[in-house]
Amino acid sequence: MQIPHIETTQSAELSALLDAAINNKTKPLGSLGTLEKVAKHIGLIQQTAQPTLTKPAMFVFAGDHGVVAENISAYPQSVTWQMVENFLAKGAAINVFAGQHDFDLKVVDAGVNHDFGARDGLIDKKVAPSTQNFAQQAAMTAEQCQLAMQHGADLVSASAANIVGFGEMGIGNTTSAAALMHKLSGISLSACVGAGTGLNADGIRHKQRVLEAAVEFHHAAKTPLQVLATFGGFEIAMMTGAMLQAAKLRKVILVDGFICTSALLVAAKLQPSSLDYCVFSHCSDESGHKAMLEYLGAQPLLNLGLRLGEGTGSALAFPLVHSAVKFLCEMATFESAQVSEKSE
Amino acid sequence: MQIPHIETTQSAELSALLDAAINNKTKPLGSLGTLEKVAKHIGLIQQTAQPTLTKPAMFVFAGDHGVVAENISAYPQSVTWQMVENFLAKGAAINVFAGQHDFDLKVVDAGVNHDFGARDGLIDKKVAPSTQNFAQQAAMTAEQCQLAMQHGADLVSASAANIVGFGEMGIGNTTSAAALMHKLSGISLSACVGAGTGLNADGIRHKQRVLEAAVEFHHAAKTPLQVLATFGGFEIAMMTGAMLQAAKLRKVILVDGFICTSALLVAAKLQPSSLDYCVFSHCSDESGHKAMLEYLGAQPLLNLGLRLGEGTGSALAFPLVHSAVKFLCEMATFESAQVSEKSE
Repeated sequence: MQIPHIETTQSAELSALLDAAINNKTKPLGSLGTLEKVAKHIGLIQQTAQPTLTKPAMFVFAGDHGVVAENISAYPQSVTWQMVENFLAKGAAINVFAGQHDFDLKVVDAGVNHDFGARDGLIDKKVAPSTQNFAQQAAMTAEQCQLAMQHGADLVSASAANIVGFGEMGIGNTTSAAALMHKLSGISLSACVGAGTGLNADGIRHKQRVLEAAVEFHHAAKTPLQVLATFGGFEIAMMTGAMLQAAKLRKVILVDGFICTSALLVAAKLQPSSLDYCVFSHCSDESGHKAMLEYLGAQPLLNLGLRLGEGTGSALAFPLVHSAVKFLCEMATFESAQVSEKSE
Repeated sequence: MQIPHIETTQSAELSALLDAAINNKTKPLGSLGTLEKVAKHIGLIQQTAQPTLTKPAMFVFAGDHGVVAENISAYPQSVTWQMVENFLAKGAAINVFAGQHDFDLKVVDAGVNHDFGARDGLIDKKVAPSTQNFAQQAAMTAEQCQLAMQHGADLVSASAANIVGFGEMGIGNTTSAAALMHKLSGISLSACVGAGTGLNADGIRHKQRVLEAAVEFHHAAKTPLQVLATFGGFEIAMMTGAMLQAAKLRKVILVDGFICTSALLVAAKLQPSSLDYCVFSHCSDESGHKAMLEYLGAQPLLNLGLRLGEGTGSALAFPLVHSAVKFLCEMATFESAQVSEKSE
């Protein structure tokens, strides 16, 4: 895909207008804390002091990872397609939380190692039935990476949502995300590697050794797109493309956990203003996520020790984002409610 | 009111059943973090592995405080009744958030210094038109305190909700809550006193001096009920009674910010098992709240820098509590979804 130019959302004039609107609401100054920042943020994204959230969408991208051959996950690869079946049967956590908050949930086969056939409710964007094992060769070709990003962008373009969340399912994808984080942020590998779906200490040490060897083997991968193609997953590349397109279309991006944020890291390296469109849903329990968020200067809404993926953190954070927009649009002002202001 | 005996919710048998139900869901073990604890907690309260939340109710108690004569608030006393009018006109933050999450919002005049007349939507439980100034005498008589608690209990008894939130409005009530916190926890007054609706540093120092003098003047107040009558507000006493009754009826109690938690502190001193029924919604930005939560061993769901009161933090936390109950009841198990379990 053609990397779109992303404009900043910053505007001194609108910023002042939003501050005044927020401060005139019938509440002590600043007393809605983080929600006031979110309200202003979304006003800037939508270029209005009366923002609204329309038809929230959640895209869950599933993909398999060749690097599972190195024994870096606590679960077998078959869990990826089995969980896709679970999404289609509405039995997974994301089904519950997306349903609770009226998300339009889209399940996307980005590259799962399974033949689903034509299936109601499954969007077939399979680039290949798994990436290659990046311990031995690049995970994907440059062309596959471009195609995955384009698919993500196209899905976002076709959506009526003005707020989009991105989830993922892919056994092995914390290994991929840790490599992206290390290569793009310069943070040491040991600080990027975690337990994923539940490795023990030995498993984490092994995962780190696999990553150290792979990073050395692919030392020539330097640009964000080279790094993404070398270590990424199809679901991650699809998220990166989707996020860039969402930012271009001035949609609010709900950023989920470790894998989703690694996709954003690529987008932010390509177009730093992408970050202007992001609301960070939560700080995950996957050990590298906190450092990744700090690297991005992000302040997440929730800190609930989640490490499930699928976009669950974003679905859970959505009602808070909605509350921020609603207080800005619906609360009375001191003047309209005839409430006395602070004594000086 | 007669202080009810509150039973503990602890049950080894049900606890094991809930752990098994939670761990069999199609997700990595423990990956829903805090939500798993909440799900188990509510299962124990409702004595079932299939808990549900029914008709959530939010009671907002408003009361005035004689201690405002000591100039301890950034806003004039008239804001209490003006904000009650704002609640009735649906213009306040709690109207927006309670409406968003389908709470049955009940606005209660616990003792506001204003004659509202008979008004649709306002529950008249006025004990007196303001407490007395506790810098000079006890805020209320023992009889008034009992009456306020009884009103709170009666309101909860009449509610169909199995989950109840409690909010408050009362200019001066952080001063009252700080006194309760100090007297009941033994934490130093300076750690209990904060900016309330927005005092500056001089204002906070003055508020602390007023409290120091009052605590010395009333050194004889020792028991939880004496402390509540001496320093409390009618809205706080009503919350204490309401919480005790909610626990007795095995309803889930959503605990809001600094004032609401001070009411719980009284309830917990009277009946420690009350705490078994509490979900702590958030850690407020009012400076004493964090220490108060730590004293109670509480782990709040949200940390958003809120300091608005009205029950807003509880309304905002509700969807997370609902998510916890929903994942427990609605998610597939590894067996039902035929998903492979972790490799050993």
